[in-house]
Amino acid sequence: MHAVPDAESPVREPTTRLDHETRTGQIYEAAARVFCDQGFGQSSMSDVAAAVDLTKAGVYHHIASKDELLFGIMSYGMDLFEERVLDRVEHIRDPLERLRAAIRGHVLLVTRDRPKEVTVVLNESLALRGEYRAKINNRKRRYIRFLNETFRELRRDGLMRDIDPRVATFALLGMINWTYQWYTPGGRIRDTELAEAYIDLFLGGMLRADQRPSETKRR
Amino acid sequence: MHAVPDAESPVREPTTRLDHETRTGQIYEAAARVFCDQGFGQSSMSDVAAAVDLTKAGVYHHIASKDELLFGIMSYGMDLFEERVLDRVEHIRDPLERLRAAIRGHVLLVTRDRPKEVTVVLNESLALRGEYRAKINNRKRRYIRFLNETFRELRRDGLMRDIDPRVATFALLGMINWTYQWYTPGGRIRDTELAEAYIDLFLGGMLRADQRPSETKRR
Repeated sequence: MHAVPDAESPVREPTTRLDHETRTGQIYEAAARVFCDQGFGQSSMSDVAAAVDLTKAGVYHHIASKDELLFGIMSYGMDLFEERVLDRVEHIRDPLERLRAAIRGHVLLVTRDRPKEVTVVLNESLALRGEYRAKINNRKRRYIRFLNETFRELRRDGLMRDIDPRVATFALLGMINWTYQWYTPGGRIRDTELAEAYIDLFLGGMLRADQRPSETKRR
Repeated sequence: MHAVPDAESPVREPTTRLDHETRTGQIYEAAARVFCDQGFGQSSMSDVAAAVDLTKAGVYHHIASKDELLFGIMSYGMDLFEERVLDRVEHIRDPLERLRAAIRGHVLLVTRDRPKEVTVVLNESLALRGEYRAKINNRKRRYIRFLNETFRELRRDGLMRDIDPRVATFALLGMINWTYQWYTPGGRIRDTELAEAYIDLFLGGMLRADQRPSETKRR
């Protein structure tokens, strides 16, 4: 799917999932940091090369352009999300459990597992164009369908208030995706606390009153 | 504060609030569309000039650089937000009424009043740097303080569940700011419906159960 700037390999090959904790992931993370620090438009491939300890020629050997590198970072971000969140929760049968697990996993991914810069890059809409943008949006759409379907099940089961599943989907996505804009890892609010607070806040607003197990404890 | 690409005026001068519905606003909105269509890094000042019916020299006469133009668009977006939302709601005495009015105003601003492209540009974190970025962030911080303070009041008045005001602030900001990523004006969900759904969903999750006026109607 996307090019691998792998210092060990002279030829381009598709990313395998095993690569993530190795050189490939390090390169994408370092490049994401360069783009965040200097701005995408203002960063050169030389800046990226310096950050990953390669020559500029070495970087160009593996990646054809800055656009391709940006697409690689975003694909890497989506790989992490799918491996660590979506693939693990989508087969949970109970829709409420599935939703809780998805919120928890997604919040912990963006606060802890995935470097902030990868999330920042993944949320840039202006930087990527054309077919690259379409490919990333397609992968994002799988998660949207998953959430939408989960909300439909909750409504069908009579657990959810009269809220449009599409509105619930995007309200939740917004809450979680925005986190990188303000959250400081290691700060006053712990990542696990934030995950539970978001589950609590969101389910509190979404579920019917008689379906909120923690309600009385909190009053 | 920021430069005005005003075709009528040969000198730079600060934006006045009256300018917004005139040429200045049109130029910022057109430039925002160019950046969204082509990507910020890939758009040239010539592209912007063509979109606003000025020569390239004409644009450079008023705006020193693409960075300055980007800062101008973001400042324009913040002007609109402050004029149409924050300035109108921050003096409402009752914190619950104030919060409802802020959510409603903010949702309607991003779905209806402000062109989507201005919102997209305003949410780009990579594109703006240094002092420009700091200035925009300062203005954003005023809204964050306003929400945080409103949640503190609601907790003090015993209306709010045991949720950290900071978490509530950013959960709400995320929900609303994300809207431009998916909402289609004139589509199936009306903007006023979306505003009320967000008020309902968010207050449902945030307020104590005995403070939710619409609960029984919905079951």
